[in-house]
Formats: sequence, C-alpha cells, structure tokens
Amino acid sequence: MDQAIFERLESNVRSYSRHFPAVFTKAKMSKMYSADGKEYLDFFNGAGALNYGHNNDFIRARIADYLLGDGITHGLDMFTEAKGEFFEAFEKYVMQPAGLEYKLLSCAPTGTNAVEAALKMARKAKHRRGVFSFAGGFHGMTLGSMAVTSSRSIRKGAHTGLPDVTFVPHPARFSGDALSYIEYLMTDEYSGVEKPAAIILETVQSEGGIVPVEGEFLRGLAELCAHEDVALIIDDIQVGCGRTGPFLSFTPFGVKPDFVCLSKSISGYGLPMSLVLIKPELDVFTPGEHNGTFRGNQLAFVGAKAALEYREQVDLGAKTADDEKFVQEFIRERILPMDERLVTRGRGMINGIDVDGLGRPDLSEKVVDLCFERGLVMERAGRDDCVLKIMPALTISREELKTGLEIVEASLKDCL
Amino acid sequence: MDQAIFERLESNVRSYSRHFPAVFTKAKMSKMYSADGKEYLDFFNGAGALNYGHNNDFIRARIADYLLGDGITHGLDMFTEAKGEFFEAFEKYVMQPAGLEYKLLSCAPTGTNAVEAALKMARKAKHRRGVFSFAGGFHGMTLGSMAVTSSRSIRKGAHTGLPDVTFVPHPARFSGDALSYIEYLMTDEYSGVEKPAAIILETVQSEGGIVPVEGEFLRGLAELCAHEDVALIIDDIQVGCGRTGPFLSFTPFGVKPDFVCLSKSISGYGLPMSLVLIKPELDVFTPGEHNGTFRGNQLAFVGAKAALEYREQVDLGAKTADDEKFVQEFIRERILPMDERLVTRGRGMINGIDVDGLGRPDLSEKVVDLCFERGLVMERAGRDDCVLKIMPALTISREELKTGLEIVEASLKDCL
Amino acid sequence: MDQAIFERLESNVRSYSRHFPAVFTKAKMSKMYSADGKEYLDFFNGAGALNYGHNNDFIRARIADYLLGDGITHGLDMFTEAKGEFFEAFEKYVMQPAGLEYKLLSCAPTGTNAVEAALKMARKAKHRRGVFSFAGGFHGMTLGSMAVTSSRSIRKGAHTGLPDVTFVPHPARFSGDALSYIEYLMTDEYSGVEKPAAIILETVQSEGGIVPVEGEFLRGLAELCAHEDVALIIDDIQVGCGRTGPFLSFTPFGVKPDFVCLSKSISGYGLPMSLVLIKPELDVFTPGEHNGTFRGNQLAFVGAKAALEYREQVDLGAKTADDEKFVQEFIRERILPMDERLVTRGRGMINGIDVDGLGRPDLSEKVVDLCFERGLVMERAGRDDCVLKIMPALTISREELKTGLEIVEASLKDCL
Amino acid sequence: MDQAIFERLESNVRSYSRHFPAVFTKAKMSKMYSADGKEYLDFFNGAGALNYGHNNDFIRARIADYLLGDGITHGLDMFTEAKGEFFEAFEKYVMQPAGLEYKLLSCAPTGTNAVEAALKMARKAKHRRGVFSFAGGFHGMTLGSMAVTSSRSIRKGAHTGLPDVTFVPHPARFSGDALSYIEYLMTDEYSGVEKPAAIILETVQSEGGIVPVEGEFLRGLAELCAHEDVALIIDDIQVGCGRTGPFLSFTPFGVKPDFVCLSKSISGYGLPMSLVLIKPELDVFTPGEHNGTFRGNQLAFVGAKAALEYREQVDLGAKTADDEKFVQEFIRERILPMDERLVTRGRGMINGIDVDGLGRPDLSEKVVDLCFERGLVMERAGRDDCVLKIMPALTISREELKTGLEIVEASLKDCL
Repeated sequence: MDQAIFERLESNVRSYSRHFPAVFTKAKMSKMYSADGKEYLDFFNGAGALNYGHNNDFIRARIADYLLGDGITHGLDMFTEAKGEFFEAFEKYVMQPAGLEYKLLSCAPTGTNAVEAALKMARKAKHRRGVFSFAGGFHGMTLGSMAVTSSRSIRKGAHTGLPDVTFVPHPARFSGDALSYIEYLMTDEYSGVEKPAAIILETVQSEGGIVPVEGEFLRGLAELCAHEDVALIIDDIQVGCGRTGPFLSFTPFGVKPDFVCLSKSISGYGLPMSLVLIKPELDVFTPGEHNGTFRGNQLAFVGAKAALEYREQVDLGAKTADDEKFVQEFIRERILPMDERLVTRGRGMINGIDVDGLGRPDLSEKVVDLCFERGLVMERAGRDDCVLKIMPALTISREELKTGLEIVEASLKDCL
Repeated sequence: MDQAIFERLESNVRSYSRHFPAVFTKAKMSKMYSADGKEYLDFFNGAGALNYGHNNDFIRARIADYLLGDGITHGLDMFTEAKGEFFEAFEKYVMQPAGLEYKLLSCAPTGTNAVEAALKMARKAKHRRGVFSFAGGFHGMTLGSMAVTSSRSIRKGAHTGLPDVTFVPHPARFSGDALSYIEYLMTDEYSGVEKPAAIILETVQSEGGIVPVEGEFLRGLAELCAHEDVALIIDDIQVGCGRTGPFLSFTPFGVKPDFVCLSKSISGYGLPMSLVLIKPELDVFTPGEHNGTFRGNQLAFVGAKAALEYREQVDLGAKTADDEKFVQEFIRERILPMDERLVTRGRGMINGIDVDGLGRPDLSEKVVDLCFERGLVMERAGRDDCVLKIMPALTISREELKTGLEIVEASLKDCL
Repeated sequence: MDQAIFERLESNVRSYSRHFPAVFTKAKMSKMYSADGKEYLDFFNGAGALNYGHNNDFIRARIADYLLGDGITHGLDMFTEAKGEFFEAFEKYVMQPAGLEYKLLSCAPTGTNAVEAALKMARKAKHRRGVFSFAGGFHGMTLGSMAVTSSRSIRKGAHTGLPDVTFVPHPARFSGDALSYIEYLMTDEYSGVEKPAAIILETVQSEGGIVPVEGEFLRGLAELCAHEDVALIIDDIQVGCGRTGPFLSFTPFGVKPDFVCLSKSISGYGLPMSLVLIKPELDVFTPGEHNGTFRGNQLAFVGAKAALEYREQVDLGAKTADDEKFVQEFIRERILPMDERLVTRGRGMINGIDVDGLGRPDLSEKVVDLCFERGLVMERAGRDDCVLKIMPALTISREELKTGLEIVEASLKDCL
Repeated sequence: MDQAIFERLESNVRSYSRHFPAVFTKAKMSKMYSADGKEYLDFFNGAGALNYGHNNDFIRARIADYLLGDGITHGLDMFTEAKGEFFEAFEKYVMQPAGLEYKLLSCAPTGTNAVEAALKMARKAKHRRGVFSFAGGFHGMTLGSMAVTSSRSIRKGAHTGLPDVTFVPHPARFSGDALSYIEYLMTDEYSGVEKPAAIILETVQSEGGIVPVEGEFLRGLAELCAHEDVALIIDDIQVGCGRTGPFLSFTPFGVKPDFVCLSKSISGYGLPMSLVLIKPELDVFTPGEHNGTFRGNQLAFVGAKAALEYREQVDLGAKTADDEKFVQEFIRERILPMDERLVTRGRGMINGIDVDGLGRPDLSEKVVDLCFERGLVMERAGRDDCVLKIMPALTISREELKTGLEIVEASLKDCL
C-alpha cells in the first residue's frame, strides 16, 4: 500500500495525512506503526479519542467477545443489554460518586451531534432561540455546532447564516470582568441580544489553544445561569473522560451543569459514540424528536463500560494527576527556559506550549514536522495553530512520556 | 436485565423502544433475539443500515481479524491501510463498472454529516448560499441537514432559523409540471429566490413515505442542473448500498450527480460510517475545512470492503431484483385486495403500503404493534406515519420474506 | 439651474433623472414644466402618488389654508384636529360605503413602512414568523418589505439575510392551480414551510409588470386564509386610492382583507403619508410598538381629507371607469395591431403594454426615450422593464389622454 | 373635535396621545395649542424634528410661496429646482465650512430609511454582511434599522430574524476599554464574528437615555475603522441639524464619517425628509438600487434650504452654546441638589435627568404627567423610560426655557 491511492481518490480535505505522511497499519497503546515498518510515539491521541491508548487489551477483550458472540451490533434507540449495562456502569462509576443525576441521551455517534442535541433541547426547554458561546470555543462542524464555534475560517465555511448565537469574551482574553459583561448581556434591556436559552463552555478550550477557565469563573457562571434560568452546557467532548484527571472535568469545581456533552474517548476504544447528560427536568424531547441511525453503536457501549471498569482498576485518575505534575514540571524546567516568550497552559494531561509570542508563524509547523521525523505524532491548536498540543494517552508509561517530551524539546530547540 | 434501567436513566427521546419493547441481546442476519428468549424477524433493518443482515459472517470474520490483529482502530483522516483498501474496492466494484469518477470524502460517520459536507462544498464551489430541496425529503437531524428536511415537526425542533433553503414540489405530489416549476424558480428574475448552489434529492423518499421519482424526471433534473450550473446532490443514504438493486440507486437512470451521500449500510455491518462522492472539479475544500473525530473508523472501512466483495460473491443485485418481484407481487395480490384504498409504492427492496386513504390515523400503529406481537419488527414512514415500510435485509431468505409478509397481511387483516 | 449641481453632489443611485433629463420646476394636474421652459404630459404620475394630478387646486386650497393658519404641522401620534377629521372622512367616504370596519394606523409616511407595520402586526397576532408573498410582488425597499419583494436584483441589494418569507406562484404565471398549491404549502406536514402568519398580495402587480389577479382567485385566497387563520394583507399602495376605479381595489370582489396598506396617493397631493387598515381583532400592538417621527404629517392629513371630498364631488370613480374603456380600446385597436407579439394587461387606469414577446431587450427603453422627446413622461415595469406603464392622473382630460396615447403609439411605431 | 373619534378608529399603537391627552390644533415656535383652548410649552420638539420651532415664519414663508406658486410638489429622484437649490445650500452652509465632501442621497423621507440605505450601501461597498452597533443604540423601526437597535422590546417586535448584526459595548456602560474590545471583535480570528462592513453610532444616544460619547473615543473609533476598512456610519438623525450646537454633531471632534444619516429637523419645518451623506468613493449604488416614492418631497427641500439660511441669519449655533450652559447650570444648581441619586447627561440642547438611581420605576412617568398638567410637554428616554428628556426647540426664548425648567423642577419636587 502506498499513498498514490489517496492522492487519486481522496478528497483534498484530508488534513492530518499532510503532516503525518505515513500509511498507518497497526497501533497499540501509545505506539502507532506504519506500512513501511516505522514506529511512532503518539502525543496526538486521536484528537482526544484514545485516552486509554490504542487497542487497549482490557477493552479489546470485551469488544471481541461481544463481536464473536453475535451480540447485536446496531440497535438504534431500542433497549439492548449492552446499552443497559453501560448505563448502569456510568451511573455507578461516574454519576453517583459525583452526586450527579442526569438522564442519558445516546446520540448519533459524533461530538457535533451531541452539541446539536443539547442546543436543541435547551432551546426547547427554555423557549428561547439565542445561545451564548465563548470566543475561542470549538464545538463541531455541522451547522448547529459551527454556529457556536468562534473560528472565522470555520464559520465562513458554512456559506450560509448561523443565526441566534452571540459570542461572549473568554475570561482569559478580556481586560474587563468577563462574568459581569456576560451578566449584562443576559439581563440588560439594551444589550441588543435576548436572554439566551443556554451558554456553552469548554472548561479547557482545546482547539482554541489549550485555555482553561478558573474554578471561580465557572462557579460564578453556573450561579448566574441558575439565577437567570439559562441552561449551562459543558462541552466535555475533548477534556472529559478523564483527560484533566476526574472523569468529568468540572466536578472538582463544584458545579452541576444542565447539560454535558461527551464523545471522543467515551467508548474507550476510539469507536464512534457520543452521550448527552441532561438534568431530568430539562429532558423535554418527545419520542424521536432527535435521532440518528447510529445512535445505538453497541460495540461502543461494550467498550464504554469496559473503559469505566478499567479506569477504576488501574486508578487512572491518580495516574493522571501524577503525570500532570511531571509534564508541567518538564515544560517549566526544560521547555520554557529556552525562550522567555514561550508560554504554557494546561490542566491534567492536556498541555500546550504557546509559541505565538515569538512572532514566527511557521514555527509550530516546523516543530511538529521535526517531531514526526523523530517518531512523535503531535498536533497543534489555537490561533494560527501556534500552540503545540501535548495530549498523550492517559495510559502512557512514564518512560514514553519522557521520551516524547524530550523529542518536543529537541525539535523546538532546533527551531529556535 | 429488565427495562427499569432505561426508564430510570434514558432520555425521553427514546422512540423505537416504545414500539418494540424488548431488550435485545443478540442478532444474526434477519433475526433478532431478546433477553427473554424471544426471536424476531427483522423487516426494519436498522433503518436501512443492515442491508447485509445482522452480524453477517463473511464481514464479521474480516472485522474480527482486524480487531484481534491490532489493526489501527481510530485513524482520523490519516492514511491507513484499511481506508486505502476500501477506496480501492469502492473504485473497482462501484465506480468503474458504472463509469463514474469521484473523489471520496470519508466524513464524520453519520448520514447527516455527509449531507452537511456535501451542502457546504456545493455552496463553496458555486459561490451561492441557496439550496433547493424537495417536499417530503428527509436528510438528517443536525441544523444543516434539518434545513433541507421538509417535515414541519422536525424543522420546528430546531428552535432557530434554518435559512437559505427553498422547498420545491415533489413530482409525485404536484398537479403541474414539477420540473418546469423548478426551472422557473431557478431562472426567473421574479421567482423570489436566488439561483441555488445545489438541489438535493432522494431517488426514493424513505422517511417521506416510500416515494420514488421516475427516471425521466431524474434525467430532466440532471440536465437542468447542468445547464444552470447547479450542483445535483443525490442523498443515497437510505436507498443506496444496493437497496434498490444496483449499488447506487441512480445508475440505472443514466445520471451522474455532482455529489452522492452514502451512509447507513456502507460499512456492511451497521458500524457508523459515511461517505461523500464528489465530482473532482467540485472538490474545493481546503485541508481540514470539514472534519470530525471519527471520520476514520477503521473497523467500518474493513467491513465496507468486505461488504463489497460479499455483494459480488453472492450476486446480491440479482437477488434483490428477484426479491423485488416477489414482494411487489405479494403486496399486489394479497395485501391491496383487502381494501381498495390501500396503495403501494416502492423500488427494489424498499416498499411501502400506504394506509392513508382509509382515514384511520391509528391504523398503521396498530398493524405494527400486532406484527411485533407476531414476532416481526417493522417501521412506518410518511405523513402521520401512515406507510408500512417493508425493508428487510437484502440477504433475507425467501422463506423469511414470505413469513414476514404473511405476518403483515394477517396483522393488517385483523385491523380492517 | 443646470444639471451640473446634481452631477457634482447627488448619489449615483438617482434613476429617473437619467431617463427624464430635465430640471423640473412647476407642475399642474397632468402637466410638468422644466426650467428650460418645456412642458411635459405626465403618464407616470409620481409612480402612483398623484392620482388627483399635480397641485390639484381643490386640495391645494385646503393645505394652504392650514399652513397659513399655523395649524400644527408635525404631530407624531398625538391627537390632532387634522388627523381626526381625516379619520372621519375616511370612515364616511371609504369604509362605510364598502361595509368595512378597520382600525387606522397612520405610519411613518412611506409605503414600505406600512408594509413593515402590517407584517409585524400580523406576525404578532398569529404567533408565527413566516409570511407568503407572490412571485412578481413588490412591496418596498426596507429589509422587511424587501423580504416580501421577489425581484432578485432588489433582494440581492440587501446584502444580508431576508428570512422567514416563502414565495408562491402567481396565478398568471403558473401552469398548475396556484390556489391549490398555496393551500398545500400552508397545510401539508411535508411542505417544508410552516403555516405562515400572513400572505401579502397586490391585486394588480405594478412593478411586477401590470399583472392583475382575477376576482375568483382573490375570493378563493381570502377563503383559504380565513379557513387557515392566515392574515390576508392587501398591498394597495399603488393600485388603491382609486387607481382601478373604486377607492380600494378589492371591494368589487367582495373580499375583506385583514390588513390593507395604503400610501402614494392617499394624501391627494403627493405628500408623504401612509396608512394601514387593520381588522379590529388583529390590532394587537401595544402603545408605541411601531412608531416613526413623521407619522403625523398634518399637511398630508389635510390633503387626504380634501382628496376624499374632491373624489366624491367630481365622481372620480365613474370617470375612471370611462377612461379605462377608452385606454383599453385604444391599446387594443391602435397599439396591439402593430405587432401580434404585443400584449396588454391592466385594470382601471393602470395599463401595460408588454413588449417582451418581441425579444428586443432595448425596445421599451427606446420607446420611453422617444416619448420623452415628444413631451411625454412614462415609466416602465416588469422583468427587464419590458412593460410600458400607462398610468396617468385619474383627473386627466380625455384630450390629454388621447394625446399621450398617440405619443406612445407613434414612439412604438418608430421602434418597430 | 373630541377624542372619541380616535378611540373608535385609531390603532392601539398610538402612544404619545396617552401621555398628552389633548387634541392639538395649532402651534407656533415653542407653543402648542389644543382644541379646548389651552397652551402648552414644548420641550419635546417633535421628537427632534422641530429644531427651528413649530411653523417658523421664515421657513413657512418660503414653503407657502412655493406651494402657492405651483412649484412641483412630488419629484421622485428627478432633477428639480428645489432639490438643486437645497443641495447648493447644503454644500455652502454645511459641508464647505467643515471641510467635508459627500455625495447626497435624498431617501424615502424617514430616518429609518436613511439608516437602511446607509447599511445597504456600506455592505455593498465593503462586500461584507456584518454590521456592528452599540448597546443602547436606536436607529429605527423597519427591519434593517431595528436590527441595529438594541432595545429588546423593539427587537422582539420584529417576530422574525434580524441577522448579521453584532452589538458592542457602549463606552459609557462598560468596565473595560470599549475601543480595544471593538478592535478585538473586528480583528481576532476567534472573536466569533466576521469583520463587519460598518459600525453605526449616535454621538449622543437619545432613545438610549441621552448618553454622549467622548471625542477621544470617537476619534479612536474613526481611526480603527479607517485602519480596518470598516465604514463608520454616524446616525445624526436626532442630534444632528444643530441639536448639539454645530450642524453636524461630530464636526467638533475632527472625524469624517463614511456615512451620515440625517432626518427629523432637516426640512426645518417638521416635514418628512431624510438625507444620507456618502463619501464619494463609497457611492456604489447602481441607478434605482434604493428608492422610495416620496424621496423627492419638494416642500421639504424648500424648507430645508430656508432653514439653513435662517440658521446663519440668527446664528443658531452660538445661541445653542449659550442655552446649553443655561440648561446645564439650571440642572446642576436646581435639579440635582434635590436628590443625590439624580444624574444628568447631555450635550448642546439635548439634556437628560436620569432618575434611575432612585429606584422608583413610576417616577419619570409621574413627573411627565405633572409637567403636562402644568402646561409642559416633555418626553422620556432610556431603560424603563427613566430619563427626563429636555429637548426644546433651538429657537426657544430664554424666558420660555426658564419657565419650562421650573416646571420640571416643581414637578420633580412634587414627586420626591
């Protein structure tokens, strides 16, 4: 297999293959293998979909058993054993320990669909059309989720209107008091926008450049939303499923959002799946009001249950907290000193190195390309892709982690 | 496993489980099995996603091998062996025999995403915002595809604007000449709408009530689109993948659409996958302009390739043509005579029995419930769900097919 | 005064001055006078605003008295004697004889504002956002009225979205049954559009090319609207105020629209004024919900009352019926025979000669220019301005009428 | 004439008549007279349309001469002597002294139409759809100008979408640096909004509650717009025509906006008229691209020219500066000391007394009603109408001014 087949038949839209020009064949945990026999360390992690590593054995065993046992594969929204068992596990391992009560909506299996479902339900429940979203936010590529995505180039791609969304300033990029301004926009008769049905937030903006919000802001926002009867939607698609430590990124801050969107790593195995958590009183859809052919991807349910059990078994939360310290210390001690204009931001195992201050638009791309030559797959994020995005599997070994970070260090050094 | 877990934890939006209140555990070809040991014959076919039957052995073997061999599972839009091999098979088995040349876009793995991608690309390529769609059309549940879906109840669910779409009359429900009226809307200075970027069409409206268009209309539309530089998008999500006989539903009519959307049965195994076929000159996306985390669902690619080979091996096209005759004859001879107000429409192995003329809004639901009691799973479609939708797997045995049709016959008889 | 001042200071948007390149100074009844001493016969009639002729003495006397007597000039929506007297006269001369009961809304003094007010109120009263309008319809140049105007070039001028409007076919340009199709669009679950709040119609499309609807269609539409609880808005801005004979164009057909928009000739003197007639039960605005600084143009109220009295005094309705016969006979006998491809349409004193069939895009412009050289001011309308628009003051003398028509005849003959 | 005729026939939308329940008959300069023989002092000034007083003799003489001399009354956009002479006067008295060069567009004669025209032209010239407007801004009641008006109750009245407008914070109500935030919104890739075609601003928000912007902000905004190629539109409809002292409110601050909208007092006599000033390079309309039946209201042109000459003759600019001092001193010395929570804002002869801080929602209405009982007509503005709006004619005598202010003082005192 060479790349000619893709050049002949694949749409120009292909993107990652331009920076990682290998034909991948196999993968295991934090390693990827290409057809020409090379091995790559993975700091990219399927854009967040592989928190448990590639083809995690514990999870694979369950999926293989189910597959070979002719468990029903495609179930729409019918009752199935696999879905029921996943729901039970989710209640037991995720909701009960955090004191959360939600209804679960297994959507069409993409993150964007979960966002669309949450927005539709919030608008219906609140009888309002408007939604607030944050500058820097990314929520998906179908029109409903593009409408709450701030990137101009993505929005322009709609080539049609994206109505009824207002962007509010992100506290990390606003000279004033962002919370007060949001309150003003929600409440003032002359703000120019109606009170919204919902506000949607990532606790750490990922595509936006690895930008966390502080707990105080998050709590203030949750209080404001409660006071103003506005639904708070946490898009935990990229930084949920344990990425920041806890399974749901917001639980350490004591807030209980009205809706939570999950996808990416929820199946544990990189299989398409998404999930919306809904406060019971907001669960206002009538039967079939939102649907999708693949909303019952049973292999994903099997994987998702296995992943929750695996997480408990290996205490992945504690490991992530340890690894967070290691990564952030490495960056502080070995990366940032290379140039005082380098900046780091992150939480848990999603950390960024922002090279924007160096004023070299081509820099991040060069670093990523050098990393690839050295056998490391790593993505970028943020304005002009100026943030190197360090997001390995949560299961990565300390040695792999160190190796990867040293490749980043060396590649960056070569460019400075 | 009983149903209590779903009542406690699942969103009210669940729909099929209300008509098929069993907890399903296993499935094989045209049979589904529930936790309480019952067996069901499947005329529903995963809403069109299971053309090769549940857990088809031929396809399952390939998927299992790949899974157990640690083939890379999650690949985004990187080059992978599994994707490359699927592309080759698609070229060989689908495009070359039909004389078609397309670029392939493997989207986020839902039909709605394929529709959104095609609309975005058509709008970009044609530098226009407007899109035409047909009354009765259904294209998905995210905002972009809802915008081209005609059902009022679905559209209302958006709770926001769905701009830049104009509905045109479907020739099956229009007293005048639909094609002339569409031409007038596209070309007249006073039509009130701009010339559209694209027009989107199902060759057989499925959710719309099993309503085929004639070949002459389709050819006329394709000529009009070519003349007016409007992109013709065929949404073959439900009736492609062999449902009407040929792999692509439009090939018998000699048209070459600008875009074709595929999903549902494309993976052969009910796994989430979608695909957009794009005329090379319209492949105008820049890298990454449309994306999605699960656009590289490798198990689906493996299944999709296997399905194409299986199709050849068992000559599924010929079998479908045979079965079409059997089904349509059964309906004409044994169903329609029960009441002269009954109507049938269909093509290949998607056939409907329209009970609307009987003026009994509860009738179709009763029939479906009686069928379920008799061990048959069957869906409805159309206005007020008044069309019984007979859509078995293409691999169904003649005996199963006859059994199922007799259950429909008996259940309908009970209700008349 | 020469034209240099305009070339130096006036926006390029100026339009009529390009076809009538004279500097006008004075005018009286059907005559206009330019600075260079020339006299012009007026078949253009201020685009419909001068039904009583320029500077009609009867009306002028009243306005002058009021002006010189320091009657309040600018009254917003305060109570004023002049407004009260106009309301009384309107009730007496227009509403009571026709058996109509309406509430009167004196809008900001432009037709477009009356349309905007009617649309706003209809949407509020019916709790729906959608509005239907007819292909070929023209209703104004602010965004709300542009949204119900079908011309592509006008709509494109918005450079923003014009949401929530659906165009329906005009019966004069539709092979099928327009009324049935409108009913289908209003009522079918799969029509792709919600039931509208209102449908807006000109009984004779003027800018659309002098296209009348038949009484039967109008009655059918009114019945449909009543049955479906959709507001019927008659835009009588151009063909009301006696243009077709009766003061309100629709009264001969026995329909009672929910809203009627009037402007243009309503003040009797070409002064800015507009008026919305509202069925009392639909008068749902709260105080100030629609407003405008010049909604109390008292000189216009004074003129409007005088005009109604003048109309009675000279029995303008009967004269218009007579003149209609004369004009239409002249066209049939002396214009149409010049070329069998010529077509005429019209009602009352708005009549068009459609030269489209001759396939000469420049023809109508040449005719109008030749007419101007011969001392006749005349406008065009319709697609590519292919309709010569004969719309003199209703007060025109028979001799002037004949003179003007002969100029048209001669100019057209020169071009054929 | 009593009020019964209005109760029977006038739409509920009537508003001012509820607070000023008299039937007005005559008016002269700062006095209004009602049918029952009462006299009122006018601090309301036709909502800004009567800067020269009611029925100003100097202007009236010119209008009467023109009317009685059969000057053409209704001219559309044809060349007329009256329009040409007004253009010359406007160039001489307004543009040349301020060093301004503009093309003049005489719109349909309402302020809202001028705003719609400026927005359309800016969008066309800049090839962008978006427009920025300020929280608190008011620009009119047709959909295009409502879209840039911030009041929620007004916007809600549209009952349809108002797309492509983004509201930005007004510097007077924003804790951060408004100009920087606007720059961020215009330029940042992640701001969530495209770069706009234009930004529209009142130099003193009137309906918004008498809120001036500082010169520094205005200059900064003009520089930003120039740098970013965004059109700056000054809506000078209410505070232009000398209201703040100079004829155009922005000239003292040294900025040259791309578009200026004028209306209200432009005709000098309360006659409907509006005007858009356009930088020549942005004058991109094609002939007829924006139009309106009453765009050539000749009596208004005659009045407008006379008003400019009158303004020179009596040096109204100097008088306004004097009166500003008197009014503001009166407020500071006699009104504000009544309660420390009272606030005043204003510029020139538009000054507000904001009673919001007193937390009595009914207060302003009571004051206005008491004033009316004492023979003073005065309006309110701002959130919940909490600002008493002191806006007499610029021609008011010092004695009348003092009398009026003392009525305000006494009425407010009664309420405190």
